[in-house]
Amino acid sequence: MEQRRPVILITNDDGITAPGIKALVEAVKELGQVIVVAPDSPQSGMGHAITIGSPLRLNKVDVFEGVESWQCSGTPADCVKLAKDKILHAKADLCLSGINHGANNSINVIYSGTMSAAMEAAIEGIPSIGFSLLDFNFNADFTVAKTVVTELVKRMLQHPMPVHTLLNVNIPVVAPGELKGIKICRQAHAKWEEDFDQRVDPRGKDYYWMVGRFVNMDKDPGTDVEALKDGYASVVPVTIDFTDFKMKNTLEELWSDFAH
Amino acid sequence: MEQRRPVILITNDDGITAPGIKALVEAVKELGQVIVVAPDSPQSGMGHAITIGSPLRLNKVDVFEGVESWQCSGTPADCVKLAKDKILHAKADLCLSGINHGANNSINVIYSGTMSAAMEAAIEGIPSIGFSLLDFNFNADFTVAKTVVTELVKRMLQHPMPVHTLLNVNIPVVAPGELKGIKICRQAHAKWEEDFDQRVDPRGKDYYWMVGRFVNMDKDPGTDVEALKDGYASVVPVTIDFTDFKMKNTLEELWSDFAH
Repeated sequence: MEQRRPVILITNDDGITAPGIKALVEAVKELGQVIVVAPDSPQSGMGHAITIGSPLRLNKVDVFEGVESWQCSGTPADCVKLAKDKILHAKADLCLSGINHGANNSINVIYSGTMSAAMEAAIEGIPSIGFSLLDFNFNADFTVAKTVVTELVKRMLQHPMPVHTLLNVNIPVVAPGELKGIKICRQAHAKWEEDFDQRVDPRGKDYYWMVGRFVNMDKDPGTDVEALKDGYASVVPVTIDFTDFKMKNTLEELWSDFAH
Repeated sequence: MEQRRPVILITNDDGITAPGIKALVEAVKELGQVIVVAPDSPQSGMGHAITIGSPLRLNKVDVFEGVESWQCSGTPADCVKLAKDKILHAKADLCLSGINHGANNSINVIYSGTMSAAMEAAIEGIPSIGFSLLDFNFNADFTVAKTVVTELVKRMLQHPMPVHTLLNVNIPVVAPGELKGIKICRQAHAKWEEDFDQRVDPRGKDYYWMVGRFVNMDKDPGTDVEALKDGYASVVPVTIDFTDFKMKNTLEELWSDFAH
């Protein structure tokens, strides 16, 4: 008797023609029934943007051999929403986003279009993983990243995870065979220090390019920044409940005279 | 001897001409030195988007009497980043975002441009609050919301909060004098159930409008949804560390054979 193959929804934020999503499809193609719904153009830095004020386009395309694929005019989060409502006929068993060209560890989780697609899936009750390689290059080598993807996806399918499981996986730039392993981590406390590049346009008006420098303030052990530096792929489980329960206790005490 | 007045940075996601930001400025104008840096157009649903691929514009405008004001071509998060790097001469003591025209309670925290500006400030170490009124109407009545703003901002300035303090405040639609009070809450476990409205354009091609229905799956006490329904303003402390520590423990055990 044939077993039902798990349905794997794939998306990204670099656009459907990026090498990273091709690597992701290749890494899991044999593990289930893959369906791709991805943006028709790059969406980096879109955070968890959704498209409310303008309509969306959705077109079937032939990009990955033997894989049902759709391109969407919206954001990564839009792709997951549209896939769920208009394309998938059953609930996906897993949603994968990436492989992003560039890091999404630590505070980048908040700005990342890759992670927003994965978050959207987790909100929908589809266990999901966002994958990112620490190489912005269009021609980055995804060989090592693909082995990490295959290994983690096999694990996720072997032991089905709670429906809201959401993992932020980052892969360091190392030669094949030199990856130290996989580490379960916490999000490093870090930020971007912006320094806008101010220029003058041909009509004499100022404009600004955002440029930033990543600053890690977190020197304690166990962070994703540390694991990546040590040559490991980092896995950070991410929550969709943003409540700060410690601060909640503080406020309940501090404001007990006026708040219930 | 004159005391230094606290510097309050104000932004929003409905754009600098929205009535909500005007109400916010009015509510706190007497409490400190207010500086407004807000988007020049509506940015609802922008999540934590930032502008990387195109340049930003920033122009001084005269919108609020006696208040230094700037409009920016970017997202709410861009506004905070630009304000910090190019406009504020000292670190702001507080950042306020809103008052949003429409709810940002529960899962909306993730999609909200209003909250992304507040989050960006918290990442920068500026205690911040996002305010939202449960009324999408352009002509919404902000009378009650303004009293909540004034009260909370006074409290925040009296007892300076930890630098990463971030509050998501939602205000129900009630007549003046009928607000039950303020409740410290947790984020309700809820989601949007999308049902895309499929149409055909004049050239015969399909397009889709996102429409959704808010579904609260959380029937346990203590949520923001419950407080708002009961006529209270809800205050949810929000974290910028998205690590799911419970899931981290689970994975460390389940994957102990292959992950460190």
